[in-house]
Amino acid sequence: MKRLYHHPMSGNSRYIRLILAEYGVDAELEEERQWQRREAFMKMNPAGTLPVLLDEADHPICGAFIIGEFLDEIQGPLMRERRLMPEASLERAEIRRIVDWFLHKFDQEVAGYLVHERVFRQQMPMDLGGGSPDSAAMRAGRANLKMHMRYVGWLANTRNWLGGNRLSQADLAAAAAISVLDYLGEIDWEAEPAARDWYARIKSRPSFRTLLSDKAAGLPPAAHYTDLDF
Amino acid sequence: MKRLYHHPMSGNSRYIRLILAEYGVDAELEEERQWQRREAFMKMNPAGTLPVLLDEADHPICGAFIIGEFLDEIQGPLMRERRLMPEASLERAEIRRIVDWFLHKFDQEVAGYLVHERVFRQQMPMDLGGGSPDSAAMRAGRANLKMHMRYVGWLANTRNWLGGNRLSQADLAAAAAISVLDYLGEIDWEAEPAARDWYARIKSRPSFRTLLSDKAAGLPPAAHYTDLDF
Repeated sequence: MKRLYHHPMSGNSRYIRLILAEYGVDAELEEERQWQRREAFMKMNPAGTLPVLLDEADHPICGAFIIGEFLDEIQGPLMRERRLMPEASLERAEIRRIVDWFLHKFDQEVAGYLVHERVFRQQMPMDLGGGSPDSAAMRAGRANLKMHMRYVGWLANTRNWLGGNRLSQADLAAAAAISVLDYLGEIDWEAEPAARDWYARIKSRPSFRTLLSDKAAGLPPAAHYTDLDF
Repeated sequence: MKRLYHHPMSGNSRYIRLILAEYGVDAELEEERQWQRREAFMKMNPAGTLPVLLDEADHPICGAFIIGEFLDEIQGPLMRERRLMPEASLERAEIRRIVDWFLHKFDQEVAGYLVHERVFRQQMPMDLGGGSPDSAAMRAGRANLKMHMRYVGWLANTRNWLGGNRLSQADLAAAAAISVLDYLGEIDWEAEPAARDWYARIKSRPSFRTLLSDKAAGLPPAAHYTDLDF
């Protein structure tokens, strides 16, 4: 069986869990605290980042974007109508642009502040950067989150799904990233009704269930987190 | 004809120029100063990043990684033995891991300090962040560069090309990123002889010629920059 090294509060890890679930690919989940820079983990992925997928022969495939491409290549063509990437190169480029937006830009500008301060630094030992949350960093993350949610709202308003007419990797990347912030009660859903409608559709998919049962140590989810009719 | 929005001192832009040249695809070059956040440019790429490729029908393809995938899809299969991506999914994942390393990790940890301070901030107006270089940022970039060059040396020592047996997008991503630092005289080639041998092979390719004639305003290249026998 495949094995996925992940963290439950890492949006990039959740993205791969969603693809695996949508494609019905089984993988054992292994929680990794990347800040520990565990030797065996660094050997698999010298960049030290999550997620990492091990295939059946223990070959590591490193990084969310790259695992997403790998799964599309080995599984996508078998999925026919339920493939999460279109066939045409220009459409693929647009899906990848949005995937990249959430795996890199959102991860850096929002999660890198808010999730880092509120979740990861609470789990880190002091000598690896743990400690109480920095309020300036959280303010920056919240300001950025507003801009990103406005962009999601704009996409949701102008398209059926975020990347075009059909559900795609773009929706899973965005929903994975946003779901962590939603867990933390950071999303102002009133402000972006189109984004809310889109997220409600994604959230009710069976693939989303395992994400909704995730727990961060010592930090209960926002009241509406598991509510499909939030 | 295609059009590429780029900056001559952006490693990610140079990566795409190398692929275009290797594949013999013509594109008009348009220099863009991304910190200006020009309205027409932001419309093409809301992330505001370089490079952006416009196809013949003016469809924007945004970001180096994504343009690289696009060019592989539309041109790669026609190139047969000179294709810059392998066929097998696991090998493709390894090429992409290294491409991602240079387009994101190196860009952030090295270019984001050194090229930003020594080139971009010199071209920016003061109100957009321009000014004299910050020496702490440059020190951080130089320390990171040493680590990255050690990794390049290790890859060059254990493989024929950085991603495996054949020249691939991995080599072009690494060489593009490193070439900007080499322009600035920041590479200690004595310290990494295997990396030097690898870079000499890449540098003598015809695709590299246009990079070697690039100039940054007011900043002449290091003495050996255009020397193929450096």
